[in-house]
Amino acid sequence: MKFTVSEIAQMLDGTIVGDEKITIDSAAKIEEGRPGCISFLANSKYEPYVYSTLSSAVIVNKDFTPKKEVSTTLIYVENAYTAFTILLEEYQKRLSQNKSGVEQPCFIGDNSQVGSDVYRGAFSYIGKNCVIGDGVKIYPNTYLGDNVTIGNHTIIHPGARIYDNTIIGKNCVILANAVIGGAGFGFAPQADGTYKSIPQLGNVIIEDDVNIGSNTTIDCATMGSTIIRQGVKIDNLVQIAHNVEIGKNTVIAAQSGVSGSTTVGEQCVIAGQVGVVGHITIANNTKIGAQSGLGKSVKKEGLSFSGSPARDLNEHLRSMALVRRLPEMEERLKDLERKQETSDFQ
Amino acid sequence: MKFTVSEIAQMLDGTIVGDEKITIDSAAKIEEGRPGCISFLANSKYEPYVYSTLSSAVIVNKDFTPKKEVSTTLIYVENAYTAFTILLEEYQKRLSQNKSGVEQPCFIGDNSQVGSDVYRGAFSYIGKNCVIGDGVKIYPNTYLGDNVTIGNHTIIHPGARIYDNTIIGKNCVILANAVIGGAGFGFAPQADGTYKSIPQLGNVIIEDDVNIGSNTTIDCATMGSTIIRQGVKIDNLVQIAHNVEIGKNTVIAAQSGVSGSTTVGEQCVIAGQVGVVGHITIANNTKIGAQSGLGKSVKKEGLSFSGSPARDLNEHLRSMALVRRLPEMEERLKDLERKQETSDFQ
Amino acid sequence: MKFTVSEIAQMLDGTIVGDEKITIDSAAKIEEGRPGCISFLANSKYEPYVYSTLSSAVIVNKDFTPKKEVSTTLIYVENAYTAFTILLEEYQKRLSQNKSGVEQPCFIGDNSQVGSDVYRGAFSYIGKNCVIGDGVKIYPNTYLGDNVTIGNHTIIHPGARIYDNTIIGKNCVILANAVIGGAGFGFAPQADGTYKSIPQLGNVIIEDDVNIGSNTTIDCATMGSTIIRQGVKIDNLVQIAHNVEIGKNTVIAAQSGVSGSTTVGEQCVIAGQVGVVGHITIANNTKIGAQSGLGKSVKKEGLSFSGSPARDLNEHLRSMALVRRLPEMEERLKDLERKQETSDFQ
Repeated sequence: MKFTVSEIAQMLDGTIVGDEKITIDSAAKIEEGRPGCISFLANSKYEPYVYSTLSSAVIVNKDFTPKKEVSTTLIYVENAYTAFTILLEEYQKRLSQNKSGVEQPCFIGDNSQVGSDVYRGAFSYIGKNCVIGDGVKIYPNTYLGDNVTIGNHTIIHPGARIYDNTIIGKNCVILANAVIGGAGFGFAPQADGTYKSIPQLGNVIIEDDVNIGSNTTIDCATMGSTIIRQGVKIDNLVQIAHNVEIGKNTVIAAQSGVSGSTTVGEQCVIAGQVGVVGHITIANNTKIGAQSGLGKSVKKEGLSFSGSPARDLNEHLRSMALVRRLPEMEERLKDLERKQETSDFQ
Repeated sequence: MKFTVSEIAQMLDGTIVGDEKITIDSAAKIEEGRPGCISFLANSKYEPYVYSTLSSAVIVNKDFTPKKEVSTTLIYVENAYTAFTILLEEYQKRLSQNKSGVEQPCFIGDNSQVGSDVYRGAFSYIGKNCVIGDGVKIYPNTYLGDNVTIGNHTIIHPGARIYDNTIIGKNCVILANAVIGGAGFGFAPQADGTYKSIPQLGNVIIEDDVNIGSNTTIDCATMGSTIIRQGVKIDNLVQIAHNVEIGKNTVIAAQSGVSGSTTVGEQCVIAGQVGVVGHITIANNTKIGAQSGLGKSVKKEGLSFSGSPARDLNEHLRSMALVRRLPEMEERLKDLERKQETSDFQ
Repeated sequence: MKFTVSEIAQMLDGTIVGDEKITIDSAAKIEEGRPGCISFLANSKYEPYVYSTLSSAVIVNKDFTPKKEVSTTLIYVENAYTAFTILLEEYQKRLSQNKSGVEQPCFIGDNSQVGSDVYRGAFSYIGKNCVIGDGVKIYPNTYLGDNVTIGNHTIIHPGARIYDNTIIGKNCVILANAVIGGAGFGFAPQADGTYKSIPQLGNVIIEDDVNIGSNTTIDCATMGSTIIRQGVKIDNLVQIAHNVEIGKNTVIAAQSGVSGSTTVGEQCVIAGQVGVVGHITIANNTKIGAQSGLGKSVKKEGLSFSGSPARDLNEHLRSMALVRRLPEMEERLKDLERKQETSDFQ
C-alpha cells in the first residue's frame, strides 16, 4: 500500500514543508529510516537524526524549528507521536481490509450462516451449524468445528483450530496455529495403573476484544465453559487448561500456563514463563513476575509476586539477595565458630 | 445431539420421577445447570441445589428422599456418580461417531491402504504407502507423510502433522497441531563456527492408548526410534526430543520438556513446565514437581523430586523454607557477631 | 529407498567382505541392528557387537581385524565414522529430493514467481507477489502470505505459517507448524483499564542456513525487522518476540523465549526453557544454562550464566550448593546461639 505525503498530511490535518508528492510505503524509526519510509520526531533527544535521516518524510510537532538544513520532507502536526500512531492504525486497518471474498477450494458444512463481507481463505474449513458474523476474516488452512460462533470483525489467522461449540466474541484476533477448545487433560487413574480419559464435554467462551497468540492452546471445560473475558490479551505458546476463567483485561505473556479450574481476576499481569497451579483464585490487579510458580490463591488485590514457589515480590527479592550472599554468610559463620572455639579454650 | 429423559433413564437402568419427555442436549454441574442440561447429585453437601437447579433433569441415588419440593425431573439410579460418568462417556462416544466418510477435497498418495469406516476430513493429506486402520478419524487440515501406520480407532485431530515412517498404535488421540516425527535438534559444530545438520533418519513409535496434547512436539530419532509406550498421556505444548523413550502409563503435564536420548520409566508423573536433561534414565514411579529441572538419572523407584536443579522433594522443601527465613538468619548472625565483639572487649 | 551393499561400498570407496548383493534400507546403531540395516564400528568398545549384530552390513576401519567369526557383511573404509556420516547425509539428500512437482489442489496468488524444480504440496497456499527460489520445497497445508520471499533450496514443512513480507534466505529449514511473522505482543494501556493494540507493521528476516523448530513462533517487528542471522539453529516451541535480533550461528534449545527488542550476539548457546527479558544486549559467545532467566545485558564475551535470575555460572553453583546446606548452616547457627547463651550466664 502506498500513500503520497499529501494524502498523509490531509489524514493527519498537517502542514507540509518539502515535497508533497513523494510516495510513502513503510514506516521506520527516525534513526533507521530508508527512502519510502515515514518517521516521527517527538522527543528532542532524537532531533539530530532529523538532519541525517534517510526517511522520505518525518512527522514533527508544530513548534519544531530546525537548527540546520533538513533534506527530508516535514509534516507539522499538533502532536507528532499521536499523529504517527493514528497513521499506523489507519495503515493496519486498510491492510486488513485487503482480504475479502471466498477463495476456492474451501469447505462449509450444512446449516452454517455466514455474515456479510466475510473473507474465507482457501482450504479453510467451517463445520455444521456455525454462525459467522459480519466482516469476519477466516484465513487459509483454518479449522472451525461444528456449532462454532464467531462475532463481527473477528480475525481467525492461518492454521488456527477452533473446536466444536466454541463461542468467540467481536473484534477478537486469534493468531496462527492457536488451538481453542481441545480436550482438557483429564484422566482418572485405574487400579491396573492405566488412566481412563474423562469425557471433556464443555466448551470455550471468548468474549469481545480478546487477543490469542500464535500456537497458544486453550482447552475446553470438562463441563461448562473455559472463559476468557473481555479485553484479555494472551501471547504466544501459552497454555490455558480446562475450566479456567481469565478476568477482564488481564494480560498473559508468552509461554505461561494456567492449570485447570483456576480463576484469574481482572487487570492482572502475568509475565512470561509463569506457571499457575490448578483450583486457585487470583484477585484482581495481581502481578506475577516472569518464571514464577504461583501455588496458592491470592485474596488481596493489587499484590506482586515472584519466585518459584512465588512469594511477595519484595520478600522474594530480599531472600534472593541473601542467596547471592550465602558464601559470605558461611564465612561469617565459620569465623564465629573459630572464635567460639578459641573462647572455649580460654 | 439430543436425548429424552426417557432414553437416558433406559440407558442407565433408572426410574423417572417427573417429565420423561423433556429433551437433554448438555451436561452441567448441579449448581450451574440450565434448561436442557442434565446434572447429578451424589454428595449430600450439594443437596440444596437440587431444589433450585435450572437443569432439566438430575440423576440421584436410589435412596435419595427430597426434603422440599423438587421442580426438576429426577432419575433414580444405583449410583448417581457412576451413572453420570457412563452417560458422559456414551455421549462422547456417539459424538465421535458423528464423523464419517470422506470429505472433498482430500489427498491420498499411491499405495496407501485405508481401513473400513474411516473419516477423512477435507484438506487432509495422506502420503504414499500408508496403512490406516479401521475406524480411524483423520480430521481436516491434517498431514500424514509417507509410510505412516495408524492403528484402529485412533483419532488425528485438525492440523496434526505426522512425519514419514511414524507408527501410531490403536485407540490413540493426537490433538490439534501436534507434530510427531519432526527432525531432532542435532547439529555438529564445525571449525568455522557454523553448525552442520546431523541427518535424522529414525522415526517415532507411539504404542496403543496414548494421548498427545495440542501443539506438542515429538521429534524423530537420529537412528532407531523415539518411543512413547502404551497408555502414556502427554498434555499440550510438551517437547519430547529425539531418541527419548517414555515408559508405560507415564503422565506428562503441559509445557514440560524431555531432552534427547533420555529414558523415562513407567507410571511416572511429570508435572507442568518441568525440564529433564538428555541422556539420563528415570526409574519407574518417579514424581517430578512443577517447574523442576531434573539433571541426573534416578535409579531408585518411587521417589519424588522438586526444584531446579531438582532434589528429593522433602530436602528441597526444607531448603526452600530456610531460603524464606534467610533475612531472619542473617539477623541472628549479626546478633551473634555483635555479642562476640562485645565479649572480645571484655 | 534401498541400496545394495555394492552401491554403498562404491559410494564410500570401500572394500566388501561378505555378500555384496544384500539390500540396505535403514541405518541403526550396531547394538540395535536389524536385517536390512547398516551400522558402523569405530570405537573398539563396541567391537563385541560386530560378532552378534543383526545388521546386514557394518562399516569398519580398514585396519580392523576380526577376532572371531563375523556373520554380517563388512565394508572396509579409511574412517568408519566419517564414511557412515557421509552415507547418512547422502541418504537424507536423496530422500528430500523425493518430493517434486505440484500436487493439486494448491493455491497461488497473483503475481507470485516460482523458481525451477519447486515442490508445492497439496493444500499449500502462496499469497500475492511472492518470490519462491529454485529447489524450494513447500510441503502440504502450509501458508505463505503476500510479498514473501523464500531463497533457493529452503524447505517449508507441513503447517508452517509465513506471514506477509517475511524474507527467508537460502538452505533454511522451517519445521512443521512454526509461525513466522505473527503480530508482536504490543498493547498500550488505556485510562479505562483496556489495552489498545499497537500496529505491528514490520516483518521477519531470516538469513541463510537457519533452522526453525516445530511449533516455534517468531513475531514480526513493530516497525523494522525481527532478524535471525545466518546459521542460527532454533529448536521446537521457542518464542522470539518482536524486534529481536539473534546473531550468527547462535543455538537456542527447546521452549526458550527471548522478549521484545533484545539483541543476542553471535555463537551464543541458549539451553532449554530459558527466558531472556526484553530490551537487553547479549555479547557474543555467551552461554545460558537450562531454565535460567536472564534479566540484564551481558557486555563481556564468552561468559556463562545460570539460575533465575541468572548469574555467573560458578557463583550460582556455589550459592546453590549452600542452599542445599542451609539446614546444616541453621544447625550451626543454633549451636552458636546456645553456646552464646551459656557464656552469657557464666
